[in-house]
Amino acid sequence: MLMNRPLFEQVLADNKLDGFLGTGPESVTWLSGYWAMPQWIRRGPQAYAFQPRHSDAGSFVVTSKGLLDQAADQALYVDAVHFFGFFAYEDFAAPGAGTGDRLRQLLQGLEHAGPAEALGHALQQAALGKSRIGIEMDGLADGVLEQVRALCPQLEFVRADFLAKKFRALKTPEEISRLRQAGRIAERSISAALAGLRTGESEVDMALRFHAQTVADGAFPVLGCIGFGERGALPNVDPSPDRRLSPGDTIRFDVGGRYKHYRADIARIAVHGEPTARAQQCHRAVQAGIDHAYSIIRPGLPASQLFAEVMGAVQKSGLPHYRRNHVGHGIGLDGYEVPALTASSTDILQSGMVMCIETPYYELGFGGFQVEDMVVVTPTGVESLMTLPRELLRF
Amino acid sequence: MLMNRPLFEQVLADNKLDGFLGTGPESVTWLSGYWAMPQWIRRGPQAYAFQPRHSDAGSFVVTSKGLLDQAADQALYVDAVHFFGFFAYEDFAAPGAGTGDRLRQLLQGLEHAGPAEALGHALQQAALGKSRIGIEMDGLADGVLEQVRALCPQLEFVRADFLAKKFRALKTPEEISRLRQAGRIAERSISAALAGLRTGESEVDMALRFHAQTVADGAFPVLGCIGFGERGALPNVDPSPDRRLSPGDTIRFDVGGRYKHYRADIARIAVHGEPTARAQQCHRAVQAGIDHAYSIIRPGLPASQLFAEVMGAVQKSGLPHYRRNHVGHGIGLDGYEVPALTASSTDILQSGMVMCIETPYYELGFGGFQVEDMVVVTPTGVESLMTLPRELLRF
Repeated sequence: MLMNRPLFEQVLADNKLDGFLGTGPESVTWLSGYWAMPQWIRRGPQAYAFQPRHSDAGSFVVTSKGLLDQAADQALYVDAVHFFGFFAYEDFAAPGAGTGDRLRQLLQGLEHAGPAEALGHALQQAALGKSRIGIEMDGLADGVLEQVRALCPQLEFVRADFLAKKFRALKTPEEISRLRQAGRIAERSISAALAGLRTGESEVDMALRFHAQTVADGAFPVLGCIGFGERGALPNVDPSPDRRLSPGDTIRFDVGGRYKHYRADIARIAVHGEPTARAQQCHRAVQAGIDHAYSIIRPGLPASQLFAEVMGAVQKSGLPHYRRNHVGHGIGLDGYEVPALTASSTDILQSGMVMCIETPYYELGFGGFQVEDMVVVTPTGVESLMTLPRELLRF
Repeated sequence: MLMNRPLFEQVLADNKLDGFLGTGPESVTWLSGYWAMPQWIRRGPQAYAFQPRHSDAGSFVVTSKGLLDQAADQALYVDAVHFFGFFAYEDFAAPGAGTGDRLRQLLQGLEHAGPAEALGHALQQAALGKSRIGIEMDGLADGVLEQVRALCPQLEFVRADFLAKKFRALKTPEEISRLRQAGRIAERSISAALAGLRTGESEVDMALRFHAQTVADGAFPVLGCIGFGERGALPNVDPSPDRRLSPGDTIRFDVGGRYKHYRADIARIAVHGEPTARAQQCHRAVQAGIDHAYSIIRPGLPASQLFAEVMGAVQKSGLPHYRRNHVGHGIGLDGYEVPALTASSTDILQSGMVMCIETPYYELGFGGFQVEDMVVVTPTGVESLMTLPRELLRF
């Protein structure tokens, strides 16, 4: 299960809520196991997931009739699936096993006119009594909340988008397993990109090898910042067909795809041939920050202290002028989750957090240097999800 | 240029607006040429684009300082770029040519505290006087509109998310060129998936070949519904590692990636070996619908009439019980744009529209049949963006 039920219940209790309705793709998938594909690739398609605080009795998904096939084909952990809208599934076959029959079963339900009617009905069926429900507004179509309020006058709805990231702060074993695999695929893709390297090729040539490996490993490309030399200093560098690789160029990778809906985000620096002394100095400094992070991460460490110590380690290791907003962030279904590793963060590291720790350095006209690792906070310290060395990679 | 300025000006005039502020990824890219990557891969990052109605004087982009590199590296068609927030670009190099110098120039601007301050300043600089501004709310963070209203009391803001699709209804030559390429890549990916076909392979095996070709051709995978036999009847089928290909299986592809930010969405049916008579009958019917669409599409045709005629063609060609919500939709930066090809649509076909025309048929326990083509409405009729035959493909 993706959902961390104990944390969910605690966050709801802290916020005096009796249940939570997710409306954005990440929340819906996390709360129910339901991946409603069109909701992930576009804005607009309405699919919701609800979990009550006290047990999973009364949990449900609301989706359009045209997306019931995915509810039937996936392993949802909700009690009920409600749907709305017309969609034509024809059916002349004798009942058989598998998805077809689960879909037939779901199709026995009421066909509601629209998402508000289906959601209102679902909330009534969940028998919540007088309850206070947190609602994520991000994915909700205009007007739906007003209609549902009218249909369920006994329920109080509280806008609570900010809670979704709190629930997801501590990952379950299944989530960690997917994040580990996402990270490994990103590493394998860096290795594949570098393995085929040749002088004179373009950033796009290298990016194609990167994404080809990501796809071959069953992930979807998302982030593919690959820049040579001075273009590595562009934080969001979009690979160019014109910038050609020369001996001595550094290569900055800030990359990661999506595996079973979970993100990767890692960074490594390679150099084609011999690095300059200055490139080695810059890389040594940013790597020192990450090396130091590994030595201090443990449950109970304030994120602000991690920030200060990592900044200090970079500054005293060759880049005294190093400045930075953050030295990392949580990662999961979204690329930025809890904790935020900033100076002003109030987050405290806890066992089960999965984070990217990173020390990017961008120097215009010269290059970019960055080590970014995905790590898990464990009961006793930290476990890296990475296997690639953090050193400057020579190719 | 992606933006269709004459249509933009007309839609604004019809709605008595003096300018439009886009806040979602598609609108920002279309209005300015600016692709702010983090805004496309996550929800939350704030980047806006504004175009006034009467000329492009006063147009601007607002983005975070950390995304200025992309504004410098891309060909934007706005007068000004404003930014907010702290981000550390270091700079010790002598000025040189290229992105580095454009970025240095942009960095000379004011560093605003947040998106609202930057947007308020940008609107003041645009010297709009007393104006009525349409604003897209979808990508705007909570509270920004209220702050901007306070900063720009002379401006009236009107929520106008629905206008974005109206502007984009008629594609420019650059947009059509990208959509053509996106469609071709999807076709090549189907061909690559089928070329490697072997009895006993899984849906996932076939999907990997599909996406590998998409990536090799410079596009990003998005939609990859590939289902064998009875699983082809699942409209949103997610390729399974367990369903193995057998002789006689139909294979439904409903697929398409993203090329230079523009979507593809096409469908074809293949059969492994000999099709059953029933499969041939179903395919003949859905193909007849698309063949008929080609014979009648022209500027001036009501979308509702296209719907009725296509439905009739399928019904009289072997599927008398055929039911369907729509027989297609516009496509562009988003997968669903204007026109909507439905019974109740008030859209009228116009030269420059790019549409998917489709007649999917889903029969539980048996299979899915679908032909979906991307086409352009031309001054005299219709041009197909497809090159693959619409017939049942035998492999």
